[in-house]
Amino acid sequence: MEDIEIDEVATPELTDPVLIEGLPGVGHVGKLAAEHLLEEFDGELVRRVYATEFPPQVNVDDEGVAALTCAEFHAVETDGADLLVLTGDHQAGSNAGHYKLTSTFLDIAESFGAERAFALGGVPTGELVEEYTVLGAVSDGDLTDDLEDAGVEFRADEPAGGIVGVSGLVLGLGGRRGLDAACLMGETSGYLVDPKSARAVLEVLEAVLDLSVDYESLEDRAEEMEEVVGKIREMQEGPAVPDDDLRYIG
Amino acid sequence: MEDIEIDEVATPELTDPVLIEGLPGVGHVGKLAAEHLLEEFDGELVRRVYATEFPPQVNVDDEGVAALTCAEFHAVETDGADLLVLTGDHQAGSNAGHYKLTSTFLDIAESFGAERAFALGGVPTGELVEEYTVLGAVSDGDLTDDLEDAGVEFRADEPAGGIVGVSGLVLGLGGRRGLDAACLMGETSGYLVDPKSARAVLEVLEAVLDLSVDYESLEDRAEEMEEVVGKIREMQEGPAVPDDDLRYIG
Amino acid sequence: MEDIEIDEVATPELTDPVLIEGLPGVGHVGKLAAEHLLEEFDGELVRRVYATEFPPQVNVDDEGVAALTCAEFHAVETDGADLLVLTGDHQAGSNAGHYKLTSTFLDIAESFGAERAFALGGVPTGELVEEYTVLGAVSDGDLTDDLEDAGVEFRADEPAGGIVGVSGLVLGLGGRRGLDAACLMGETSGYLVDPKSARAVLEVLEAVLDLSVDYESLEDRAEEMEEVVGKIREMQEGPAVPDDDLRYIG
Amino acid sequence: MEDIEIDEVATPELTDPVLIEGLPGVGHVGKLAAEHLLEEFDGELVRRVYATEFPPQVNVDDEGVAALTCAEFHAVETDGADLLVLTGDHQAGSNAGHYKLTSTFLDIAESFGAERAFALGGVPTGELVEEYTVLGAVSDGDLTDDLEDAGVEFRADEPAGGIVGVSGLVLGLGGRRGLDAACLMGETSGYLVDPKSARAVLEVLEAVLDLSVDYESLEDRAEEMEEVVGKIREMQEGPAVPDDDLRYIG
Repeated sequence: MEDIEIDEVATPELTDPVLIEGLPGVGHVGKLAAEHLLEEFDGELVRRVYATEFPPQVNVDDEGVAALTCAEFHAVETDGADLLVLTGDHQAGSNAGHYKLTSTFLDIAESFGAERAFALGGVPTGELVEEYTVLGAVSDGDLTDDLEDAGVEFRADEPAGGIVGVSGLVLGLGGRRGLDAACLMGETSGYLVDPKSARAVLEVLEAVLDLSVDYESLEDRAEEMEEVVGKIREMQEGPAVPDDDLRYIG
Repeated sequence: MEDIEIDEVATPELTDPVLIEGLPGVGHVGKLAAEHLLEEFDGELVRRVYATEFPPQVNVDDEGVAALTCAEFHAVETDGADLLVLTGDHQAGSNAGHYKLTSTFLDIAESFGAERAFALGGVPTGELVEEYTVLGAVSDGDLTDDLEDAGVEFRADEPAGGIVGVSGLVLGLGGRRGLDAACLMGETSGYLVDPKSARAVLEVLEAVLDLSVDYESLEDRAEEMEEVVGKIREMQEGPAVPDDDLRYIG
Repeated sequence: MEDIEIDEVATPELTDPVLIEGLPGVGHVGKLAAEHLLEEFDGELVRRVYATEFPPQVNVDDEGVAALTCAEFHAVETDGADLLVLTGDHQAGSNAGHYKLTSTFLDIAESFGAERAFALGGVPTGELVEEYTVLGAVSDGDLTDDLEDAGVEFRADEPAGGIVGVSGLVLGLGGRRGLDAACLMGETSGYLVDPKSARAVLEVLEAVLDLSVDYESLEDRAEEMEEVVGKIREMQEGPAVPDDDLRYIG
Repeated sequence: MEDIEIDEVATPELTDPVLIEGLPGVGHVGKLAAEHLLEEFDGELVRRVYATEFPPQVNVDDEGVAALTCAEFHAVETDGADLLVLTGDHQAGSNAGHYKLTSTFLDIAESFGAERAFALGGVPTGELVEEYTVLGAVSDGDLTDDLEDAGVEFRADEPAGGIVGVSGLVLGLGGRRGLDAACLMGETSGYLVDPKSARAVLEVLEAVLDLSVDYESLEDRAEEMEEVVGKIREMQEGPAVPDDDLRYIG
C-alpha cells in the first residue's frame, strides 16, 4: 500500500465548489456540522482517501461488513453554493502525517476547482456554554468583513494556542497556495459532543454561503445531550440515580 | 537490513489455501488458536518475515540459541482445507508499519494462491465469560450466511471501536484486493490468556473449513487457566493463600 | 509539501554575519534574548523555514489572520557585528527532525556567509537564581578565552546531561562543518520565563560582539515576572489571595 | 546530514579482530565492561558513527568543548585476541533505528575482518546480587560449549523477555550474516550501575579470548558502589543520615 491512496469514486462537475472540512476535534463540532450537511442535502461520495497515517483499523457496519478507515469527500449541491464536504473518523497520527494528509486534501479540493475553504471546529471554553459564539480565523485579512457580518467574532490572540490539526493546516497550507480559507470555531465546553455549537457554526455558513439548513435532526441530538448534561448535573448535585448510559464520546 | 525481509524457507504446492492469521492480541485468542492448529496438524515452515517495525529483539530457545524476532507462515495440510497459518510474537510498532506488514502478509498469501482469509482474535467483554460466543466481521456481505450457520454472531456496530491491528487490516486491505476475508473474534474477559475462547473460534473454523480438530492440549491449558481464575477469585473473596505464580500474560 | 520548505523573503548583503539562535527552551531564555535583539535593532525578515517536523499548527494574529508555524531568520545590522537571528515557536518533533532542521538552519546561515554562531539558551538550576551566571560550551577550544573574558563560566562536565535540541546541534553539527560555534546558557530556575537570565546572556553578546543593547523593555518583562514570583511566594507562605493570572509559560 | 555518518579516523590492520559491543543498558554492565577494556589496553579510535537516531545532543568535556553524540569503535591490541570495541552513550530511538544502526555496526566490524562478536550486557534480577553469574545466548549452538567451559550459564527460556536493543540484534542480525555472536549477560539488580557484574562478564572474556585484565580501577568503582548500597540500606533501615549524593544512574 502507498502512504496515501485515493479512490476516485465519482467526478461530477461542480460550480465553484467550497471545501468544508469537518474532521474530529474539540466537541466533535466540525464533524457534527459537516455530517449534518451531508444528511440534509443529498451528497454524492466522490473520493475516499486511505492513509497509512490513519490507525490500522476497520469499522464494522450493521451488516458486519468491515471497511478500512478513510476520509471521504462528498459533493453536495445546495440551494446556495456547491460544497465539497470532507469528513472522516481520524486525524493523522504524526506531525508530518498531518502535513501530508492536508496537502492531499487540498490537492483534491483544487482538482474540483475549489478556491474557498471553511474548516469547521470547536474551541474549548472549559465550562458549559450558554451563548454559542463562533470565533474565526482567516488565511487573508480581506475575508474577515463578510464573516463579521455573519456574526463571527475575531478576538486578538484567540485561540491562544493557535489552531492545530487539519483545520489549522487548511488555513496554513491553504493560505500558502492562495486558497481563501477560514476557520469557524464554535465555542463549546470541550467535555461533550456539542450539537448546539455545531448549529452555531452552520448558521454562519448559511449566512455566508446563502444556504438554508434544517436543524431538526441536530436539535434532536442537542436534546439528547441536554438530557446527558442534566443527568451529570444531578449526579454532581444530588440523590437522583441515572438510568441511562452517560458515556457519549468514544 | 531492508525494512522487511522475507526468508523463503519452502514453497510447497497448496490447494486453494486459506490464510489463517493469529498474531498476539486480546486474550491471545488468535495466537492460541493458530498455534493449536500448528500443533495438531503437522505444519511446514514456509516463510519467515523480518521487519524493522518489530522490536529490536531476539528470543532465546532452550539451548541458548537466539533467533531474530519474526512472523512465520506455516503450510498446514488438514483433513479439510489446506491452510497457510500466520503466527508471531509481535504486531507492528506504528500505524504505517501495520499497513506495510499486513500488505506483505497478504502478498505472501496471494503468492501461495490464497483467496480466502480468517483473522482470528478476541473481543474483550470486561467480565469473566460463561458462554463463548464468537463475533464476526467480513470483507463482503456474501460471507455472513455461512458463518452464521457455523454459529458466528453478527451484531450491529460491534465491536464498538472497530477492529484494529493486523486482523483489522486483513479485512480492510484484504477486502480492497478482492480477498474473501472474515474476522472471528472470541468473546473473552480481556484480562487473561483464554484457551476456551480460542477453542470457540477454532470450532467455527472446523465447521466452515470442514476440519476436525482435537482439543486435548488446549483443554489442558484451559484447565491451568481455570485454576488461575479460581485462585484469583479466592484472593478477592477470602483467606486462602495462593501457592503459585498467578502472573500469566507476559 | 516538502519535509522542509524555505521562503526566500530577502537576501541582503551582510558583512561577516553572526548566527544567533534563540528557539524555545529552558526558561525561554534563548527565545527572549533573540527576540529582544529583533526589537532593539530593526531586523529585516530574510527567510521563513516551514517543516513537517513542526506541529501542524497556525498562529492567529490580532487581526484574526492565521500563519503557518515556521522558524524565521532576520538580518540585523547593529552598531557592532551584523547578525542573522533565528527565532521561532517550536523545536523539531523527533530526533531525526532535529538533525534535519538544524542542518537546514546551518545551510541558510552559511549561504549568508556566517562563520560564527551563538546558540542562546538557559540552564536550569532548580531554584530561584540570585546571580545570573552564564555557562558556556564551544565547538572549538580556541573560543573559550574570549568568552571567559566576557564573564562566561566553563565548568567541567556542565551541563551534566549535555546540551540538547537545536542549540546542541548548532555546536555539534556546526563544529563538524568548521563553524565557530558557542552556546551561551543563562542560569535560570527552569520554572518560569526568565527575562533576567536573557539579559545576562545578551550582556555577554554585547561584550563579545561589541554591541550596545538597551534593556528597558526587557526590564519591564523582568518586573512583571518579579510580581509573578512575589505572588507565588505569597501563595506558598500565606493568606494573600492572588488577583491575577499566574500561568505564564504556555 | 545523512541518517548515518561514519568518520573513518584510522584503519589499522587487525588480526581476526573480535567485536565487543558495550552500549548502555541494564546496570550499565556492558558499557562499564567495554570501557574498562579501553582503559586497561591502549585502544586506538578508528571509527565514529553519528546517527540522526541518536538524541540531538552534544556532550561537553572538561574544557567546555562540545562533541556531537556518537558511537565509537576502538581497535584494541591485547595479550590475547585483537579487539574492536564498540562504545557510546546511546541506543537508537526507534525500532527501525535499532536495526539500521546495528547493521551499520556490523558492516564496520566486517570491514575490519571480524568474524566473532560478543555483546556485553546485564540481566536484571530485581534484588541485590551476591554471586555474579553470567548468562549466555548465542547465534549458533556450536558456540555454547566453550562458553560453558568459561563458566557461562545457559538457562532454558532465559532471559524471559528475550534480549532487546543493539545487543539482541548483534546476535540476531549478526547470526543471519554468519557472524559467530554471543551475548554475555551479567546478573545485576537492575537498580544500580554494577561494576562487579561488569567484572564477572570480563572474566568470561578473559577465559574465552585468552586475555589478562587488571581489575583495580573497576574494583575502585565497585567499592564506591558498595558505599552507595550501604547508604541505601541504612536509609531503608534506620536513622543514619546520608551525607552524599546517592543518585548515580543519570
